[in-house]
Amino acid sequence: MSSGYTLDEIAGWVGGRVRGDGSLRVSGVATIAEAGAADLTWATDSKYARQLAESKAGAVLGPDDLPESSLPAVLTKRPASALITVLEHFAPPAARPASGVDASAVVAPNASLGDDITIGPQVVIADGVSIGHRAVIHANVCIGPSVVIGDDCELWPGVVIRERCRLGNRVTVHANTTIGADGFGYEFIDGQHVKVPQIGAVEIEDDVEIGANCAIDRAKVGVTRIGRGTKIDNLVQVAHNVQIGPNCVIVAQAGLAGSIRLGQGVVLGGQVGIKDHTTIGDGAQVGACACVAKDVPPGARVIGMPAIDGKQFAREQARLRRLPEMAEQLRDLIKRVQRLETAADD
Amino acid sequence: MSSGYTLDEIAGWVGGRVRGDGSLRVSGVATIAEAGAADLTWATDSKYARQLAESKAGAVLGPDDLPESSLPAVLTKRPASALITVLEHFAPPAARPASGVDASAVVAPNASLGDDITIGPQVVIADGVSIGHRAVIHANVCIGPSVVIGDDCELWPGVVIRERCRLGNRVTVHANTTIGADGFGYEFIDGQHVKVPQIGAVEIEDDVEIGANCAIDRAKVGVTRIGRGTKIDNLVQVAHNVQIGPNCVIVAQAGLAGSIRLGQGVVLGGQVGIKDHTTIGDGAQVGACACVAKDVPPGARVIGMPAIDGKQFAREQARLRRLPEMAEQLRDLIKRVQRLETAADD
Amino acid sequence: MSSGYTLDEIAGWVGGRVRGDGSLRVSGVATIAEAGAADLTWATDSKYARQLAESKAGAVLGPDDLPESSLPAVLTKRPASALITVLEHFAPPAARPASGVDASAVVAPNASLGDDITIGPQVVIADGVSIGHRAVIHANVCIGPSVVIGDDCELWPGVVIRERCRLGNRVTVHANTTIGADGFGYEFIDGQHVKVPQIGAVEIEDDVEIGANCAIDRAKVGVTRIGRGTKIDNLVQVAHNVQIGPNCVIVAQAGLAGSIRLGQGVVLGGQVGIKDHTTIGDGAQVGACACVAKDVPPGARVIGMPAIDGKQFAREQARLRRLPEMAEQLRDLIKRVQRLETAADD
Repeated sequence: MSSGYTLDEIAGWVGGRVRGDGSLRVSGVATIAEAGAADLTWATDSKYARQLAESKAGAVLGPDDLPESSLPAVLTKRPASALITVLEHFAPPAARPASGVDASAVVAPNASLGDDITIGPQVVIADGVSIGHRAVIHANVCIGPSVVIGDDCELWPGVVIRERCRLGNRVTVHANTTIGADGFGYEFIDGQHVKVPQIGAVEIEDDVEIGANCAIDRAKVGVTRIGRGTKIDNLVQVAHNVQIGPNCVIVAQAGLAGSIRLGQGVVLGGQVGIKDHTTIGDGAQVGACACVAKDVPPGARVIGMPAIDGKQFAREQARLRRLPEMAEQLRDLIKRVQRLETAADD
Repeated sequence: MSSGYTLDEIAGWVGGRVRGDGSLRVSGVATIAEAGAADLTWATDSKYARQLAESKAGAVLGPDDLPESSLPAVLTKRPASALITVLEHFAPPAARPASGVDASAVVAPNASLGDDITIGPQVVIADGVSIGHRAVIHANVCIGPSVVIGDDCELWPGVVIRERCRLGNRVTVHANTTIGADGFGYEFIDGQHVKVPQIGAVEIEDDVEIGANCAIDRAKVGVTRIGRGTKIDNLVQVAHNVQIGPNCVIVAQAGLAGSIRLGQGVVLGGQVGIKDHTTIGDGAQVGACACVAKDVPPGARVIGMPAIDGKQFAREQARLRRLPEMAEQLRDLIKRVQRLETAADD
Repeated sequence: MSSGYTLDEIAGWVGGRVRGDGSLRVSGVATIAEAGAADLTWATDSKYARQLAESKAGAVLGPDDLPESSLPAVLTKRPASALITVLEHFAPPAARPASGVDASAVVAPNASLGDDITIGPQVVIADGVSIGHRAVIHANVCIGPSVVIGDDCELWPGVVIRERCRLGNRVTVHANTTIGADGFGYEFIDGQHVKVPQIGAVEIEDDVEIGANCAIDRAKVGVTRIGRGTKIDNLVQVAHNVQIGPNCVIVAQAGLAGSIRLGQGVVLGGQVGIKDHTTIGDGAQVGACACVAKDVPPGARVIGMPAIDGKQFAREQARLRRLPEMAEQLRDLIKRVQRLETAADD
């Protein structure tokens, strides 16, 4: 009764086939560099063949066309997708508080809680909150008045959801993220910054995942919206009245200023900054560290500060590397032309 | 007994006048694009006239010179200021814990609490803390020993105020912000980074508002100071011993390194980074994503990495867009000059 | 019975000597600009002599070769190191909850707690957690299942440590930081972003200090590792599977994408962004706001977006400032060469 799974079992999960000994047993999953004899490693592409040759892994999960080697292999058409299945099997049990409502939680009597719900220690749930079935609310989460949360959501410790915000189904929010803080709006009147009331809320659609330590501000009026299936990394700023389309990917530390609109399937690299009231078209990709100051058309790839077309950026950078040399050449040319002119005048 | 307010009532609040039917009733406020027949929308400038023509709003709040249209209007001299008044009237009731001290809060017996105070669930207030009248301390806030907080402050859930920091009156701090963590200071001694004790504190003056998930570090000695009336957005970093003048505006994800000084009325755009020991003069404006490495004079507008004068930046960028073409021209000229020289030598 | 310490006492702590009246007593430490007559100030370098001449300090801590002035002085060979000792003496008592386990904390019965431990109010400690001797766990910290924490650690309020993460000895984590949130990994399958399970953890070695409001993600498999003695500032992002060597320094708001490797003694400036799967060699220094897109060799100094050699960057920037002028010169040259060519053709 040894632990782990055989390659035959793994091939069965992912609809793949085994090359080598199908009865071989692996007890963990590890990267090519870190794997040991008891581990399964993976290569989503046959270009990893050389690294695999040096790996100490016991077996490999790879594409159908993975070059043969001494390593037993589970081969599939879509190894990236198969890896997800494998990791799900190897995952340790989910870390969750005991189901039910912890005795230390403070839950308003008029809150509505779904079936099979888990409310961890020290959680605070305010008046009029509604939470769907099977939600997992970890320790120290605060949910403000009249918040509505769908089914199968998970909120990690320290998450704050402010009043009247709404989360769809299967929404995950990671630790210490704040949803629904006031948008940043002031008018300068008589020598002071006077606060513009932020009376809207945040609406997060189904299947959204939001990373740790993010800030998603409530709208001035109406809602700040995060579209269905969008995934947001850590430490991201989403300002008031931003509208994010479905299936976007926003990498860590990106910042979206007020009233920005993202189409569907937009990808923002890490540390991207976007000016307020800008529109980013469907499928556009913004490279890491870019600073976007005007609209980006659908499908475009932009980068730089200010962000411009990616190919143009590459061309400019190549020239910029040669700029000191160009300056020399220019100085030299000026002298030579002067000499030619002098000679011509003679 | 219908809900909402009539245009006559709204005009009364803001000292404006009604154009059209003053008895018309609106029940919400919405943007030009999102407003429906029951909503008031707004246009702070008459340039929005064309968009208004397409709006489904029931009425509009606008400037005295707003072009006539079929839309009933409340007209005022200062529509931006009037909008604040209107939003205050339409705001739902503030989301607050029940007044008094929640039974689950842990409050040191020697803490001094003002009148009409609200301390939410799971709050922790340490020894020697003093909090002024009418403060609202939301759930899960932690206030360290000997912190002093003025009147009419509001701290949202998850805020941490470390020992000996001081907040003035009418200070608002949004969720999950940390005030008074140790400054980042080490000396490299005998092969290790040895911590420099950070024995100062943070002082936040009256009427400051600080966004969500910010970090305002305590001073090495003395205080890190946020001046009266300054407004700080989300995810902002303020390092030890920074001195921020009154009425500054610091947009999201900006980062201020140690011992920076900001004059009064300075505006920092989103994601701005400023080098330690730099001074930014009164009224200076730093554009989004700029990286400031040297002092900025009063009233200057800078941008870029490194930050330079905004107009110079625009000129350079315009040329940079043409740099690949300039490189071609230069290469071509070199050949032509060579030919001329050869011809002249003949 | 006056407060403070005499210069003789201070010289004794730091192995220095007194110049002037050794019986003089100081009761605080302050910067050159802020110090008053009862304060000791410091100058780590004799270049501060002019500022010292204008200081109102009562005495100064400085290097052996500090120019003579009217100010009594404690002189040492290593004033920066001596300042640490002095600040430790002047530091107010540490701000800590009462020792033992606060009655409001929720601690799993099977958690293992070391001797002389402090667990503050509202703390949550899950199943199977192990915490070493003399740890200080401040209010509202959440520690997930099976986390292992060494001796002499300090976790400030609002810190979240997710399941199975491991901290060594003498690790400090500042407020509202999240350790072990899921890495950001998805595969786009059949029109949706499907989550790649993040089944690894985070391992933090001895003597690491992590700032406030950071996010250190758990690994997809294996661990995200922060090496011994590394110091991390506030609001830093460390993605899944990053490997950080010993004694690195990472300044605020830096972001490290997935699977980056940092050697030992690497310094990353504020707001630096680094592309995934990049390697930064031992002792390399990356300037503030840089965006690193390829490997950096040991000892290199890089800066810019994209990051390049620091000296090359300075040269390019100098030329870039002159680029509008160069464009003029080029335009002018083209005309002149044309004229010469026309003349030659005649």
